[in-house]
Amino acid sequence: MKKTVSLLVMLVMVFCSFNLAAAKPLQVEKIGSFFVGGTTVTLSGLPTTEGVFAKNGPKRVSDPNGEFAVGQMYVQYIKLADSKAKYPLMLWHGGASTGATWETLIDGRPGWQTFFLKAGHDVYVSDAVERGRAGWNRWPEIYKTAPEFPDAKRAWVGSRIGPTYDPDPTKRVAFPGSRYPAKYFEYGRKAAVPRWSSLNDERVQCAYDEYVKKVGDCVILTTSQGGNFATQEALNNPDKVKAVILVEPSGTADPTADLTVLKNIPHLVIYGDYIQGHPTWEKYYANVSKYRDALVAAGVPVTWIDLPKIGIKGNSHALIQENNSEQIAQIIQDWMEKNKLMK
Amino acid sequence: MKKTVSLLVMLVMVFCSFNLAAAKPLQVEKIGSFFVGGTTVTLSGLPTTEGVFAKNGPKRVSDPNGEFAVGQMYVQYIKLADSKAKYPLMLWHGGASTGATWETLIDGRPGWQTFFLKAGHDVYVSDAVERGRAGWNRWPEIYKTAPEFPDAKRAWVGSRIGPTYDPDPTKRVAFPGSRYPAKYFEYGRKAAVPRWSSLNDERVQCAYDEYVKKVGDCVILTTSQGGNFATQEALNNPDKVKAVILVEPSGTADPTADLTVLKNIPHLVIYGDYIQGHPTWEKYYANVSKYRDALVAAGVPVTWIDLPKIGIKGNSHALIQENNSEQIAQIIQDWMEKNKLMK
Repeated sequence: MKKTVSLLVMLVMVFCSFNLAAAKPLQVEKIGSFFVGGTTVTLSGLPTTEGVFAKNGPKRVSDPNGEFAVGQMYVQYIKLADSKAKYPLMLWHGGASTGATWETLIDGRPGWQTFFLKAGHDVYVSDAVERGRAGWNRWPEIYKTAPEFPDAKRAWVGSRIGPTYDPDPTKRVAFPGSRYPAKYFEYGRKAAVPRWSSLNDERVQCAYDEYVKKVGDCVILTTSQGGNFATQEALNNPDKVKAVILVEPSGTADPTADLTVLKNIPHLVIYGDYIQGHPTWEKYYANVSKYRDALVAAGVPVTWIDLPKIGIKGNSHALIQENNSEQIAQIIQDWMEKNKLMK
Repeated sequence: MKKTVSLLVMLVMVFCSFNLAAAKPLQVEKIGSFFVGGTTVTLSGLPTTEGVFAKNGPKRVSDPNGEFAVGQMYVQYIKLADSKAKYPLMLWHGGASTGATWETLIDGRPGWQTFFLKAGHDVYVSDAVERGRAGWNRWPEIYKTAPEFPDAKRAWVGSRIGPTYDPDPTKRVAFPGSRYPAKYFEYGRKAAVPRWSSLNDERVQCAYDEYVKKVGDCVILTTSQGGNFATQEALNNPDKVKAVILVEPSGTADPTADLTVLKNIPHLVIYGDYIQGHPTWEKYYANVSKYRDALVAAGVPVTWIDLPKIGIKGNSHALIQENNSEQIAQIIQDWMEKNKLMK
């Protein structure tokens, strides 16, 4: 009887503590942002135009000449009063995206920014050069080429949501077993922004270099194109990057580089489903696999998870948005705990 | 003696409570973001190009045709567990800017997002259509004209920091008594983003309409170009907009419109220094003054503060960044309290 009562009391206590944990507000020490990297470029000799830039205001000259900020990136941080992680967690977005990738999911559930804040990390969310709040510059005078504008078909087929895109949602085909919340696809397109080709990569990497130097010791979690920059960043700042987490990377640093400097930096790679048969993704996956082999040969600890191989099927390239988003974030959190990245 | 002791105890208590307030973390209930407004536009018949979009990746076709998200805006919200304000506080940025305007100041002090969170408001920070995380679209197929890129001279002279700009900081002239942190001017340029002319205003306003409809009852605090949109928004949604705060507005809605629907919506206007003698700002100021007169004639409560007239001299158009930023935020907070916008 006494034991039963104790058990009941314990159960009630556990239940209450769960409820309290769910309801407890985030203890935020500081919210802020900064710009980092970049330089000033001067343009001259371009013709001026005229326009109105305030409602009912006077016409004024618009002069494309002068000094312009080029190559900076934007970073927003949320620091906790009760951080449980050893290092700030940096979230680096992919192509045609901004830091909004990590915020609220397209179906309204909390995103990974919130997940990792709740797990006790100080979370840094950035917009890389040319994206979002980082701003962008004119071409061909500063950037070499015109941007690519993110169309819906590329998002559907290119992100392996399904084999066939159609403007009519009822005619759009998703892969069997897809976890993507297809009814929010149109809404999700609103988060896409113009991007430039890899000709701009060097400028982007330079800003990431400055970002890591400024913040110091950190863990980098990226998706898609962010993998290219994060793997290079670990090579550029091996004393500061404490772990590299690559979700659906589209590329990496050069596998023929000397990777032995990375031997104390654990790497985690996670891929979703439907890669086989997708020509672009087969090539991206093969490239990243080569890099993995080079890492392992250099003695770098690598955890490679093909989600379908551990029984989690149905994830596209956009797995952060999918119905098991939190499950995948938890896999990452467990890996960070196992790798002693928490206090 | 007894009185002295009581006074001492009281002083110590007041001191402690100030210190506790300063040290207490923000109690954040929810951080998230959403996109709102906009539609889908289809482009066809444009020539394709080729490019590499992932390091060491294959060349792929870049197709400018397809379906594109157009006219959405981006909103990030931070909701407090212990909000003391009756309504969410929306911060709307100005031209060539994004929501970063409201975050950390260029000299590193906390910005108005933090000030108003600490004052007890749920704070919403947005990027209007064409700016920051809202994304932007190609021209002339979707937007009518090319953008204007934000050069340094326009920021210095156009923002009334000083009469003379020079690329060499030592030759740059600020107005006498300027409060602008000139040594951070170059850094401040990193926050500027391309903008379009007023030909894009309708699209921007439509998104703001949807934003206010989605959030509901709210207070809008804007700077510069945001004044154009906020005054129009009060007319478009007079049942939801509970107050309009215009910091250095560059324009307003049409003063010949029927403004009687605004009679329960208090308006606050704040202008800085150095307007007289600046041709563009004299015109902007005259336009907003006309709107003020029309508001007053329609029975709308208006508080108009010319900072120099209340003894606060030296503020430019960029007053949020200046050495009395917090003092001006406090004037706004006091006005909100007086207008019963706090619980």
